[in-house]
Amino acid sequence: MTEHIRVNGARLWDSIMAMARIGATANGGSHRLTLSDEDRAARDLFAEWCAAAGLSMTIDAMGDMFARRPGADAARAPVGMGSHLDTQPFGGKFDGVFGVLAGLEVVRTLNDHGIETAAPLEVVNWTNEEGARFAPAMLASGVYGGAFDLQWAQSLRAVDSGATVLEELKRIGYHGAAAVEAQEFSAFFECHIEQGPILDSAGISVGVVNAAQGFRWYDVALTGFAQHTGSTPMAGRRNALLGMAQVVQAVEDIALEHAPLARGTVGSQIEVGPGSRNVIPGVTRFTVDLRHPSAPVLAAMDAALREACQEAAATNSLALSLEQISYTAPVAFDADCVAAIKRACQRLGVSHQTITSGAGHDACYVARRAPTAMLFAPCKDGISHHESESAEPEDLEAVCNALLGAVLEVAGRAE
Amino acid sequence: MTEHIRVNGARLWDSIMAMARIGATANGGSHRLTLSDEDRAARDLFAEWCAAAGLSMTIDAMGDMFARRPGADAARAPVGMGSHLDTQPFGGKFDGVFGVLAGLEVVRTLNDHGIETAAPLEVVNWTNEEGARFAPAMLASGVYGGAFDLQWAQSLRAVDSGATVLEELKRIGYHGAAAVEAQEFSAFFECHIEQGPILDSAGISVGVVNAAQGFRWYDVALTGFAQHTGSTPMAGRRNALLGMAQVVQAVEDIALEHAPLARGTVGSQIEVGPGSRNVIPGVTRFTVDLRHPSAPVLAAMDAALREACQEAAATNSLALSLEQISYTAPVAFDADCVAAIKRACQRLGVSHQTITSGAGHDACYVARRAPTAMLFAPCKDGISHHESESAEPEDLEAVCNALLGAVLEVAGRAE
Repeated sequence: MTEHIRVNGARLWDSIMAMARIGATANGGSHRLTLSDEDRAARDLFAEWCAAAGLSMTIDAMGDMFARRPGADAARAPVGMGSHLDTQPFGGKFDGVFGVLAGLEVVRTLNDHGIETAAPLEVVNWTNEEGARFAPAMLASGVYGGAFDLQWAQSLRAVDSGATVLEELKRIGYHGAAAVEAQEFSAFFECHIEQGPILDSAGISVGVVNAAQGFRWYDVALTGFAQHTGSTPMAGRRNALLGMAQVVQAVEDIALEHAPLARGTVGSQIEVGPGSRNVIPGVTRFTVDLRHPSAPVLAAMDAALREACQEAAATNSLALSLEQISYTAPVAFDADCVAAIKRACQRLGVSHQTITSGAGHDACYVARRAPTAMLFAPCKDGISHHESESAEPEDLEAVCNALLGAVLEVAGRAE
Repeated sequence: MTEHIRVNGARLWDSIMAMARIGATANGGSHRLTLSDEDRAARDLFAEWCAAAGLSMTIDAMGDMFARRPGADAARAPVGMGSHLDTQPFGGKFDGVFGVLAGLEVVRTLNDHGIETAAPLEVVNWTNEEGARFAPAMLASGVYGGAFDLQWAQSLRAVDSGATVLEELKRIGYHGAAAVEAQEFSAFFECHIEQGPILDSAGISVGVVNAAQGFRWYDVALTGFAQHTGSTPMAGRRNALLGMAQVVQAVEDIALEHAPLARGTVGSQIEVGPGSRNVIPGVTRFTVDLRHPSAPVLAAMDAALREACQEAAATNSLALSLEQISYTAPVAFDADCVAAIKRACQRLGVSHQTITSGAGHDACYVARRAPTAMLFAPCKDGISHHESESAEPEDLEAVCNALLGAVLEVAGRAE
């Protein structure tokens, strides 16, 4: 394997730009919501490209698309590569799309060089990763990974029209016959933009993603007493905002105590009542988001949060309501897959670093069924879920080359 | 003056309860917005009571009502007693009403005893103290005190119908011929519920109000950068909420440094954006309310606030916008009037304490034209501007007796 073949970076870029024209927004982004007419057009274009590359397409009952390139050993499960083609409302051109089209570019490159792999390859488009038109996010990969029930997922309703997932799948012609759970992978790789600033600020081309943070989400309410700001002495006030301010600082401190991997944030979804400048805040309702790649550390952060909230409530004579509304366990990606990506980067001589994913991805659910890892590309200033989302062609090419190298190693070449 | 006459507490209470039936709410409050049909009905009832007590009524161009009881010395300016009959939306039964009807009860009591004063007396109902239907508050007393222009005040529009003050005055028949500035007082006394918890928690019947706090109001905005809570490292974040939390704590600390008279509050009118639990707050907009009865101390608090905001912005790499949107100077009430109230309390043997008003009142503007002081009655838990606003008959009676004593001393008895 001294022969180091390379992907066609320009073709990859052109494909991403062509896909971005479907649902293109005035400010340079894409608006391609799950199972919309734009999603159908994107799927049709992807299917057309797959057919042109000689791939055979399977659609499952959630509309997931699996485009297979045969391998020499038909008995082996395919090596999967993919992500999603749907976008956030007025989202970016790269989130998800890059992962699908990087997989397609790997196949096109192998075709260019007439290389047959031992294991089959499969390029995958997962339905509704974004969760914007149908909540929750990572829906179809969640069904695949066993996190969600198929019938429940199919019955979810669109926030716009109220139509169900199943109705919309049928309407756009992507309700397939295959069982969701039928697909098997010998390994799965997802390329994605980082959606954070680490690689971009460090000037690194490839992020080798060895884990995804677990996270705990909370709803918190602190209730005091709304009184006049002028006639109420400082002593004896029950100021709910003072309590919230103390929790905001405590959440920051909890994350810093577990630096550098921990994250802790009171989110930007906040209510303070009753809503008058000359009334002391009587109630605050806010959210907390704690993240760490280690479940035990995340549990310690949870305990610290509970203690901080109780202290803030006690100090200010407030009633506390603290509810953990979701827990997503950390995901450790497959060590062999991670090592294969690292070796590919080393062979290519591209700058790379190990990184933990701060966001959820389809790969997190696929990892429940198959050895999985991810590759991150830097995106400008870490901005994502926004029309201004931006990535450099040479970085995407480098990541795609690393994907090619890892896939070739894992799938093996035909003898 | 060894003869200590007393007001009729039951009659005072009954009058307050009768007035509360105009615009009575299901939860025991009153909804009697300025220049509404309910306000007209309240004015008509008050005018009827004044006529029955032998008073002559003058209405001015702002609808202020001046009900005069002649004195032996017609050359002396009258001693005024009053407050306002309008209420907050779904407000309480006592705020304002008590001050007007306490003045009426003093007159009724003097009538009962056939006592003539040297100076005339005048019971006053000021228009639009609340500022709820027409902003700003203390409108007509502000015109009287020279803070507002008459034509400007008459042209303000109702938040509900858009009708002007002048149109509504004419509609309800209370646009009087007298010039607003024509009234002169040799002294003015306003009874009011405290609207704070100090007297109630201390079990004191009469608050002798020697001053009203000055206050400064600010609009503050802190702008950082909205990023993903999971993929953004703690270092380098520009979290606008952390900045706000630090200002919230600083405002508390600034007030505590100038205890016990200072007040400092970030109010309950707060916006945090962009409004998602998994996005770091990119912007916070909030208000600050600083109060103190000493102008120099208030200026020092202002300086401390500005420094704290700049530090919070610098620490968190935020852009700061800090605007003082209003300044109301402290009011020192007239020392002789205050002393007259104290002496009346001592003669009566009622519990009393000196207190500073934390809220604005008509008396604050009247004080620009005449020697003025206020008397506070305790209200349950300090709650006001709410249907549950509550006061005890015996406290209101004690305050009214102190008013009677002070007015008799200042007006003098006819020889």
